[in-house]
Amino acid sequence: MNIIEVGCQLRYRVWSPTVFLLNLSVARNAHQTVTSESLEVVPYQVIEECEVGPLGNRVVRLNATPGELTIRYTATAELRSDEVDSTNVGETNYEQLPADVLSYLNPSRYCESDKLYRFAFEEFGQLLTGYSRVTAICNWTYQQLAYTPGSTGPTTTACDVLIQRTGVCRDYAHVAISLCRAMGIPARYVSGYAVNLHPPDFHGFFEAYLDRRWFLFDATRLAPVGGFVRIGTGRDAADVAFATIRGEAESTEVFVWASDMSPSSRLLPSDDVQTGISSA
Amino acid sequence: MNIIEVGCQLRYRVWSPTVFLLNLSVARNAHQTVTSESLEVVPYQVIEECEVGPLGNRVVRLNATPGELTIRYTATAELRSDEVDSTNVGETNYEQLPADVLSYLNPSRYCESDKLYRFAFEEFGQLLTGYSRVTAICNWTYQQLAYTPGSTGPTTTACDVLIQRTGVCRDYAHVAISLCRAMGIPARYVSGYAVNLHPPDFHGFFEAYLDRRWFLFDATRLAPVGGFVRIGTGRDAADVAFATIRGEAESTEVFVWASDMSPSSRLLPSDDVQTGISSA
Amino acid sequence: MNIIEVGCQLRYRVWSPTVFLLNLSVARNAHQTVTSESLEVVPYQVIEECEVGPLGNRVVRLNATPGELTIRYTATAELRSDEVDSTNVGETNYEQLPADVLSYLNPSRYCESDKLYRFAFEEFGQLLTGYSRVTAICNWTYQQLAYTPGSTGPTTTACDVLIQRTGVCRDYAHVAISLCRAMGIPARYVSGYAVNLHPPDFHGFFEAYLDRRWFLFDATRLAPVGGFVRIGTGRDAADVAFATIRGEAESTEVFVWASDMSPSSRLLPSDDVQTGISSA
Amino acid sequence: MNIIEVGCQLRYRVWSPTVFLLNLSVARNAHQTVTSESLEVVPYQVIEECEVGPLGNRVVRLNATPGELTIRYTATAELRSDEVDSTNVGETNYEQLPADVLSYLNPSRYCESDKLYRFAFEEFGQLLTGYSRVTAICNWTYQQLAYTPGSTGPTTTACDVLIQRTGVCRDYAHVAISLCRAMGIPARYVSGYAVNLHPPDFHGFFEAYLDRRWFLFDATRLAPVGGFVRIGTGRDAADVAFATIRGEAESTEVFVWASDMSPSSRLLPSDDVQTGISSA
Repeated sequence: MNIIEVGCQLRYRVWSPTVFLLNLSVARNAHQTVTSESLEVVPYQVIEECEVGPLGNRVVRLNATPGELTIRYTATAELRSDEVDSTNVGETNYEQLPADVLSYLNPSRYCESDKLYRFAFEEFGQLLTGYSRVTAICNWTYQQLAYTPGSTGPTTTACDVLIQRTGVCRDYAHVAISLCRAMGIPARYVSGYAVNLHPPDFHGFFEAYLDRRWFLFDATRLAPVGGFVRIGTGRDAADVAFATIRGEAESTEVFVWASDMSPSSRLLPSDDVQTGISSA
Repeated sequence: MNIIEVGCQLRYRVWSPTVFLLNLSVARNAHQTVTSESLEVVPYQVIEECEVGPLGNRVVRLNATPGELTIRYTATAELRSDEVDSTNVGETNYEQLPADVLSYLNPSRYCESDKLYRFAFEEFGQLLTGYSRVTAICNWTYQQLAYTPGSTGPTTTACDVLIQRTGVCRDYAHVAISLCRAMGIPARYVSGYAVNLHPPDFHGFFEAYLDRRWFLFDATRLAPVGGFVRIGTGRDAADVAFATIRGEAESTEVFVWASDMSPSSRLLPSDDVQTGISSA
Repeated sequence: MNIIEVGCQLRYRVWSPTVFLLNLSVARNAHQTVTSESLEVVPYQVIEECEVGPLGNRVVRLNATPGELTIRYTATAELRSDEVDSTNVGETNYEQLPADVLSYLNPSRYCESDKLYRFAFEEFGQLLTGYSRVTAICNWTYQQLAYTPGSTGPTTTACDVLIQRTGVCRDYAHVAISLCRAMGIPARYVSGYAVNLHPPDFHGFFEAYLDRRWFLFDATRLAPVGGFVRIGTGRDAADVAFATIRGEAESTEVFVWASDMSPSSRLLPSDDVQTGISSA
Repeated sequence: MNIIEVGCQLRYRVWSPTVFLLNLSVARNAHQTVTSESLEVVPYQVIEECEVGPLGNRVVRLNATPGELTIRYTATAELRSDEVDSTNVGETNYEQLPADVLSYLNPSRYCESDKLYRFAFEEFGQLLTGYSRVTAICNWTYQQLAYTPGSTGPTTTACDVLIQRTGVCRDYAHVAISLCRAMGIPARYVSGYAVNLHPPDFHGFFEAYLDRRWFLFDATRLAPVGGFVRIGTGRDAADVAFATIRGEAESTEVFVWASDMSPSSRLLPSDDVQTGISSA
């Protein structure tokens, strides 16, 4: 079990009455337990906590008045050790996919899998199926793209990235998700905190559905998957924006951290992982 | 209350073992009751019925063997009369939107609302809010587009359509949904049967969330909204394909019907409707 | 006749042997005469002057070595007064367009007129033809778009801008050119210097072919058309980049100026112009 | 020297007075001589022949009246044998490219080379430069794409094709041209007749500028390059449409042929060619 301390501090200059929708609280599920947590808003605001959608994304909504706004979140999460020998993890046949997983085969805003059937089949159609095929998709994505902060924006899609061949973590995830879906493997986007991510920031990675479970993957190799703490889950980044703002406000600081507090940290570099992380 | 008989017959030539996922059964909810229903598959196949997602879309999955395949579905639905005086139906403030409605503000595969904020605001930002603004979006969509079968394809998006200015029912719905979301009005796609649709076919229309309820709209004016029988609900057409096919099969017939069997039919031409249809 | 002094100073930090292709010299044609001109390059480099294409774009090519590079260009141009009563300037029938003008009906990289036939026809098909229709296209472009520095990039196209509704001068020109071509009016891009442009910068505008001549237009209304000094002409901005760089170099300064030195300046604000400027 | 007989018959049903612009006459240049030629139009129409642009594309313009229209073109062309040992054909340094060749480095409507710098560099940046690199681009294009009639349309671009991985001859040419330009190799589109093309049709291929000459290439491998008879040359297919129609007319027949009449035909299958064809 890993014990991870995470948190973030966000500052805004607010110009008019503004509603903030924040999706930065650690998710609660069978794989991660939140043992302590705090959310401070300065100046004090009434906040509303709600769950969005069937996946349990935790959203905080607050009405800010003009002025400076500081949001500080901290949490300690215990991650269950869910390593699995990935050697024999296969794909689930289409006719056996659970009904609630089927929608993760559909194309979404930033993951146009419906345009990529031939592309994916040509690149990955001859490979062994299962965990190793998703690993091949991650490796291909890692090798084809250059991690280039600033090279993409909020409306950049997987197909855009496949042409320009540069992107950041969300783009890597969108590309890999799109290729998985095009191959018939359900895949979805996960936002989270990540230990040993440099520079520290929120992270975006993905899950693929294999052998009746979701497994975590990250095509960026920027941080060990075993140190990922899930915030939100969705079809793509459109569903798990860290902050959605209705009103006039300007971000003046985003500071994010995540530390492994386990007695003896076992987090390995992500390109060394030979065991799958079953996540949900 | 309207009593509508609907149905369809689909024929395929199947070339290899093929999984069909069919989304053509009438949805069950507080607004429509299925009083009788039958699904025939010739030759006989084991079929599996399942619900997909939180919206209760009913999906039938079957494994077809090579040869001819005929699927025949019929149902009788009673539609509750849900007409509402739309005069005072307003928009719901962002901070009061229920958590499970928020995701219908997100952009989706065929509805790139994240690119249309300024477009929507310039066209519709000065209008009265609420039901009348969604009606204005429908009218604008109707006036800007030419209904042109064959002018769009399965990967055409709302932005494509806003440039080329032609489309079919799903494109009209995608445009209107995108503009609603860009204005901060949750909107979602609905597939269904429609009385008095010429030529008869499956139909695509949409819902907008106003005043704590979903209301039905159709920017095509092709058939009266009061005669719509819902099949599926989703973010856009990606979620409610009538048939998803994994394998080799060729469609040889699609025949769809819908008849109003109410003692005295009250279905008006769709451009005459002055009352809102609250749908869910 | 207007006498305009123009110039620019560009500084680069050059990291490796680098070829610069500069398109910033004032064009020579029947409508503008260069009475004096100088180009300084520090440190001294061998430079090559050449004309590119049939339009007489003047290009300077130089091989820079690592270090600081300064390019300083100044010129005095006399602009012939080519004002024309635009009232009766009509469009040229397709069968009477000169052969060398026909290619300006073709779609180009940033002007996808081939996707805009219906869009253009719906917006402008019912208007009076000729100069007034091109003016209507400029007015529409001006009204639909918000001039927003930084909102577009080097690969942004007219269709992108029609969706996002923001852009800078090159985007305004691309939109207007695309709509002209879609209506059957040949149109092309012009880069140049502009008197009274704030902040001072290179400018992009366009020409439309009417009544057997090219006329200058500018949908941005940022500066008087009578004070435009042409640098290059092309299908769109792809053909007239101010600087094309092969190698490793970083721009550290771009400073541009243009002043009307005529004894009594007659330059009017651009939205006041009632006379057409025939340009070539 | 190869002697090639080519021709086409086009039939239209014309509904209103319509202007046709036809670009189907064999080009005249140092590499191909037209020894006989005829153009019949039934019913008789006044036709106008003109050259478009600096490349000498020959365009025929005619005003058709309502009714049936038949256009029949035949020509005999002698192709100079221009085979060159391609082993040592290198690329021309950027600073030595002639001014009139520079524009073929610019992106164009269907060849978005400006989005493909990294893509091209990653795939082809490490290869030997020159003829062999363009050959590598052709081979890659051939291997990545599936030739699929009907899979693309008139507005499909190279980037679209790189995602969907299917296309026809014009798409293969657009992809290869885009990749050449992104690598700094000038490239342009050529339309023409082709011996041994099955099914017979107009063909689209391309030229790359190497070692101070243009060389012909065809990534489709559908017909021997030595049997190509040039019609038009342009930046991409936008410049050399076989027929541009202003008015209401419907194509009812397109029949194209090309036969090698040389005493002893030496045309080899295109994937066997080891010698470059210098073309202009």
